Amino acid sequence: MRIGIIGGGQLARMLALAGYPLGFRFTVLDPSAEACAAQVVDFIQGAYDDPEALQQLAAQVDLVTFDFENVPVAAMEKLQQQLPVYPPAKALAVSQDRLQEKTLCRELGIPTAEFAAVNDPGELKNAVETLGLPAVLKTRRLGYDGKGQRWLKTITDLDSAWEELGKTPLILESVVPFEREVSILAVRNQQGETAFYPLTENRHEDGILRLSKAPYDDAEMTTLARQHTEKLLRELDYVGLLAIEFFVVDGQLLVNEMAPRVHNSGHWTIEGAQTSQFENHLRAISGLPLGSTDSRGYSAMLNFIGEISDISQCLEIANAHFHDYGKTPRPGRKVGHLTVSANTAADLEKALKQIAAYV
Amino acid sequence: MRIGIIGGGQLARMLALAGYPLGFRFTVLDPSAEACAAQVVDFIQGAYDDPEALQQLAAQVDLVTFDFENVPVAAMEKLQQQLPVYPPAKALAVSQDRLQEKTLCRELGIPTAEFAAVNDPGELKNAVETLGLPAVLKTRRLGYDGKGQRWLKTITDLDSAWEELGKTPLILESVVPFEREVSILAVRNQQGETAFYPLTENRHEDGILRLSKAPYDDAEMTTLARQHTEKLLRELDYVGLLAIEFFVVDGQLLVNEMAPRVHNSGHWTIEGAQTSQFENHLRAISGLPLGSTDSRGYSAMLNFIGEISDISQCLEIANAHFHDYGKTPRPGRKVGHLTVSANTAADLEKALKQIAAYV
Repeated sequence: MRIGIIGGGQLARMLALAGYPLGFRFTVLDPSAEACAAQVVDFIQGAYDDPEALQQLAAQVDLVTFDFENVPVAAMEKLQQQLPVYPPAKALAVSQDRLQEKTLCRELGIPTAEFAAVNDPGELKNAVETLGLPAVLKTRRLGYDGKGQRWLKTITDLDSAWEELGKTPLILESVVPFEREVSILAVRNQQGETAFYPLTENRHEDGILRLSKAPYDDAEMTTLARQHTEKLLRELDYVGLLAIEFFVVDGQLLVNEMAPRVHNSGHWTIEGAQTSQFENHLRAISGLPLGSTDSRGYSAMLNFIGEISDISQCLEIANAHFHDYGKTPRPGRKVGHLTVSANTAADLEKALKQIAAYV
Repeated sequence: MRIGIIGGGQLARMLALAGYPLGFRFTVLDPSAEACAAQVVDFIQGAYDDPEALQQLAAQVDLVTFDFENVPVAAMEKLQQQLPVYPPAKALAVSQDRLQEKTLCRELGIPTAEFAAVNDPGELKNAVETLGLPAVLKTRRLGYDGKGQRWLKTITDLDSAWEELGKTPLILESVVPFEREVSILAVRNQQGETAFYPLTENRHEDGILRLSKAPYDDAEMTTLARQHTEKLLRELDYVGLLAIEFFVVDGQLLVNEMAPRVHNSGHWTIEGAQTSQFENHLRAISGLPLGSTDSRGYSAMLNFIGEISDISQCLEIANAHFHDYGKTPRPGRKVGHLTVSANTAADLEKALKQIAAYV
């Protein structure tokens, strides 16, 4: 089977490396000749909505998936008439729009932070009156890694925030005084078989994921996260891997955002779970049985952002593994990650202290 | 760093898949356009001793390794003058000749089956008188997977065996009434740091490895295997992964053969050890620290020979993982393998019974 991947970043790259052992071949479509997945797959350079490039891809592959959520929905809907596209275009559409995403959650009874649509300065003023301050003004679309967001602390911030972001539809969200951020990875195959990875605890720095640790052992939160996610999987008739980020607040989980794809907070599963998120996404979309999502000991994943530390030092640490994305380093860019595993949570903390000396 | 691999079979393929996360790029040289590693690496088609192809490779890469032991030693010695070649050509030379291999073991005090060089019918007769029957007549060179061997059961077998094999230098080996076959994988890096994987128990069918299970828990045999292997590593100034197959006979280990490369009996390490043999070979030859060779639970590896069973059924089994080599099926050809892991040896046996129903 040949699988097409729209988007050629590190997620596509790790999908391919996980998929070759399953006997799959890959063709990746990406606008950039520098796309790091191109180093390990067959490659088509072209815009995500270039009809010719998409036809070239469709002619080569048996099914299509994507490695990021800002792929044009219309292009995927068109492709879907020719061959299977997983996850479904509906999930893509919902996840591309913070307002749709939060509205769907609300409809399904899944808690989120308070939110309001903002399309003009008047709506912004009203929304601030309703939700209070501080609050975060975000573009409904195309935000990632903290981009397209502005904190509103006082009423005087409104004008400049509107100035900066107001060219596109916006959403205002209450600031949630969360205790921690966790995420869940769920996977559902063509046959409807579903599996959940253990909860992952995430720490962001400057809006970019820096550290994930798993499993986050909290039976109550795990049950809650699975219930919430199960609703979304069924509503979206989902096939593939779905990641949902939550805020933990007073024994509740509030959805922060969802990603209809393999996710940075699941990279630990390569070494730390019986089956990696990448393998399970491919099993799910190709109709194979899902692999076990059980964790193997305790794992932490540390992103290299902007540059890669001295790998030789890092690999001195017991059970540390490096994942280079083959990218040119650039400030704020995810260029690789390190995973470290241990038999106990306490041993994992010790290993993290060692790593802190190097990175 | 770009690494050249001479030979483009499944071992080169799995080396590349393990090496991309470390940030390595690969160029593989193989005479066959069908070489299965070519699906995942940059590829040069050419004979192993084609000076032009070797120069093309040398110009592209920072160091060279190989994925099988019948690479011409002279070609590697020449290459070695330009750039590092690991494992060293001396190890290659020894492992290519059963007589040299066993003679070196004898010199180092490492037990082997009794053996004698055979270059003419008279030497064959003398060797049979000395070693007794049954015995196995083997070509000194180019044997693998049971090829180039003839069992001698009675004195009447000598003429036909000589007829079949006598065109090249031979070795006669005593038949060892072994209890089991085990192998050890050792890895030594440029700095001389050495690590050993747990013993693996192997079962061959028709001269081809069919099943490996690890760890084979026997502290005494493990110590013995490490002692023997350590001697060879030091004698050969070895860098990279070395595999040695032993017969277990009366509490002794007799060397059957060595392979100066990653080895089929180590495929279980991908899921079953903290660091796979492929990653550790690459860490060793590139001068990185070695990864932990500890096992993770109990694992078994089953080769698919000639054809691949119904993968969808096999992947229903808990913690089963498939490795397709991307080869055209052909009788007697290794085309893929399945690894299954469990927390206990007893659970592993249960999983193996399940698998037996499918393969």
